[in-house]
Amino acid sequence: MANEERKDGERQPEAQDQPLSGLLNKPVSRRDVLKMAGIGGAGLLLGAAGVGAIFKEGLFAGASSAAKPAAKEAAGDIVEFYGAHQAGIATPSPNFILFAAFDVVGTSLDSVRALFKAWTAAAASMTRGEPVGEESGNDHLPPTDTGESAGLSPSRTTITFGVGPSFFDHRFGLAGKKPAALVDFPAFGGDELRPEWTGGDIGVQVCSDDMQVAFHAIRNLSRIGRGKVVLRWTQEGFQRTGAADPKGATPRNLLGFKDGTANPDTDDDSVMNRVVWAQSADGAGWMAGGTYMAVRRIRMRVEVWDRSTLADQEQTFGRHRASGAPLGGKDEFDEVNLEAKDASGKPLIPMNSHVRLARGDGSAQILRRSYSYSSGMDNKTGQLDAGLLFICFNRDSRKQFIPMQQKLGQSDLLNEYIVHNGSAHFACFPGVRQGGYIGDTLF
Amino acid sequence: MANEERKDGERQPEAQDQPLSGLLNKPVSRRDVLKMAGIGGAGLLLGAAGVGAIFKEGLFAGASSAAKPAAKEAAGDIVEFYGAHQAGIATPSPNFILFAAFDVVGTSLDSVRALFKAWTAAAASMTRGEPVGEESGNDHLPPTDTGESAGLSPSRTTITFGVGPSFFDHRFGLAGKKPAALVDFPAFGGDELRPEWTGGDIGVQVCSDDMQVAFHAIRNLSRIGRGKVVLRWTQEGFQRTGAADPKGATPRNLLGFKDGTANPDTDDDSVMNRVVWAQSADGAGWMAGGTYMAVRRIRMRVEVWDRSTLADQEQTFGRHRASGAPLGGKDEFDEVNLEAKDASGKPLIPMNSHVRLARGDGSAQILRRSYSYSSGMDNKTGQLDAGLLFICFNRDSRKQFIPMQQKLGQSDLLNEYIVHNGSAHFACFPGVRQGGYIGDTLF
Repeated sequence: MANEERKDGERQPEAQDQPLSGLLNKPVSRRDVLKMAGIGGAGLLLGAAGVGAIFKEGLFAGASSAAKPAAKEAAGDIVEFYGAHQAGIATPSPNFILFAAFDVVGTSLDSVRALFKAWTAAAASMTRGEPVGEESGNDHLPPTDTGESAGLSPSRTTITFGVGPSFFDHRFGLAGKKPAALVDFPAFGGDELRPEWTGGDIGVQVCSDDMQVAFHAIRNLSRIGRGKVVLRWTQEGFQRTGAADPKGATPRNLLGFKDGTANPDTDDDSVMNRVVWAQSADGAGWMAGGTYMAVRRIRMRVEVWDRSTLADQEQTFGRHRASGAPLGGKDEFDEVNLEAKDASGKPLIPMNSHVRLARGDGSAQILRRSYSYSSGMDNKTGQLDAGLLFICFNRDSRKQFIPMQQKLGQSDLLNEYIVHNGSAHFACFPGVRQGGYIGDTLF
Repeated sequence: MANEERKDGERQPEAQDQPLSGLLNKPVSRRDVLKMAGIGGAGLLLGAAGVGAIFKEGLFAGASSAAKPAAKEAAGDIVEFYGAHQAGIATPSPNFILFAAFDVVGTSLDSVRALFKAWTAAAASMTRGEPVGEESGNDHLPPTDTGESAGLSPSRTTITFGVGPSFFDHRFGLAGKKPAALVDFPAFGGDELRPEWTGGDIGVQVCSDDMQVAFHAIRNLSRIGRGKVVLRWTQEGFQRTGAADPKGATPRNLLGFKDGTANPDTDDDSVMNRVVWAQSADGAGWMAGGTYMAVRRIRMRVEVWDRSTLADQEQTFGRHRASGAPLGGKDEFDEVNLEAKDASGKPLIPMNSHVRLARGDGSAQILRRSYSYSSGMDNKTGQLDAGLLFICFNRDSRKQFIPMQQKLGQSDLLNEYIVHNGSAHFACFPGVRQGGYIGDTLF
């Protein structure tokens, strides 16, 4: 779903059809604009302010200028940056991710505010496929944009910002505004966290259908932040590319299994308000319409996994590898029947299987947005450094992600084959309105 | 161009139209098969032996079984593994690469030969989008295929094999067969080589339009090689995805410039025989139809680059950033005029610019197949670890790549902004015929 215009945290009716008109602040919402752009071509967006700048200086002339209009015409490749919620949470997942955690240098809240304002303008431009800033035409200055995405499509790029628990220490005078839900994660069973993939004052999730466009985004944000923030860690990730896949097929993880099948319906506002979006009533009013993001770098011991039997693998997940169906079922989307027993009376879905533990009693849900990663190899062991960049969003990590992960960390059969070596927790701001800036409800 | 059936190293006439019929060993070549498959749909390939195995065990049922035929029907997404030359050299570049270097364990040539035979069968299957091996149906055995590419398209995957200078030491009794061209690279100016990205007995280049499919290939080759080889280093890379790009547009590197514009015409057999394919007359007869591959991991100091002026950047490359045209030209494909002078009599294209040095006197050409990479960050400096996985193929590195890189290493203006931190050299075998195996001309 796109980002509608509405008051942060406002309760949505549960009807699925056309409940929006009554909620919209304006006769034509950005959701409608997106719909029109997606269905009717790019006329509307091409006419928008800012796009002219692409051609103004001739900087992106040549093959690029030929490519720009074609790229813009590709329906649905722009995900609107502005809206009631940040993009990159409930919007569909493009094929690549580049996640970056930054630490703030110094103690000036003014400096942080200025940075977020500059990042807002840059993110709005980049997600439209436009360069950062407006070139001066003076070639004795560094270019305002680094240029490597010139001529490339907007690629459904989203840029999603959050702040970690450490952001609310003494430095910026914001300790009193720290949301109760933004805790430091407890130590989970199976954690082997490494500082190079853990924590961060600020988290930025860039998702894109083009890795070069994602890189361009993080690189330019980092460049804009020079002197104000330093990179703490980054991680690339990928999904299988979507072109040849039937719509809606769940990607397989690098263990060969379909995982994360049970995601809540992002089109159902009542579900989203219950599971994902922080509400005014939750406290920390500036977070209403935002969400809490858990990031876990989960290395898979693929070499060990690959030597285990298919039966072991299926018992571990509690699913059939081929179909993705829960054990005892036929189809990926069959109900997980936790009561089913085999002939000897043992549960068909083992008590410590991943699907059973992750499901729990069904009361705690999260919205997953995970990507596989392949990051060279571990030079100590000669094994591939590959696995899952697990990301989830939830309304209150204390009630959703944390108890779920505690259960998994204690007894998940999968723990024999995985290790959590990175971890971070961020409060993702509510969406930004035109004229506003990222974090303006906080600052 | 596809891999035609022809004698290794055989001279091709220069006519471009339909010169093939007289050269084919068989009435219907694999090239024709590919053409038919690409143009007329997937009937022929779907009927081929081996494809039935996908469905036989029900292993890839469910959403995957629905996806398989659709994937196969996508025209041109299979690059034939067998042929006079290895695929992945003259064939078009898919969007992703996973390069892996292996070292051989032990000293048994029989073991190496057996490995290459097993790798041949696996590579032929995987490039067709099929799983490795045939599942036993016994779920108390490990699966023969790791499963994560099930349901994904063949994705134009190519797997290209070569052996490095170290492969010809005392271990396997092959020292006498070492090609004179397969030298250890000399130290180049600007090298800061790191052992974790340098050398290797065996090099395997996997290119694919789907990173998950590329990962699947290296992971399964590594798994098949367990006990015989160990991973030495790997590197992922990407191009911008092609969908939205005008045909033929040269991708930009991460410095924002169009680079590698001057590649030889892979459709011109006389050029390819002169520039890329080793010939019988070159000595080391087993390499006729093969080629030499230089791999260089070139980190770009993007943070420094981004603070230099556009004028500096353009003088460094000798090209305009916007158009990709050589300085003084208008269009990317304009002739590079090394004689042109500005009003003050200075060369328009600086003497130490990248384009001038890389071009040299025009006698030494190489076939480039480079990818950008983004591999997290350098934890010591907080800077992005990103750059170029430079790969080129040439008939004799002593006469082509090495002198070119010596000149660049000495005086390229670009050296201020890059560092070569990985390097390897491989003799890539000639293509494999049906019934043969990788390296059979050597072993």
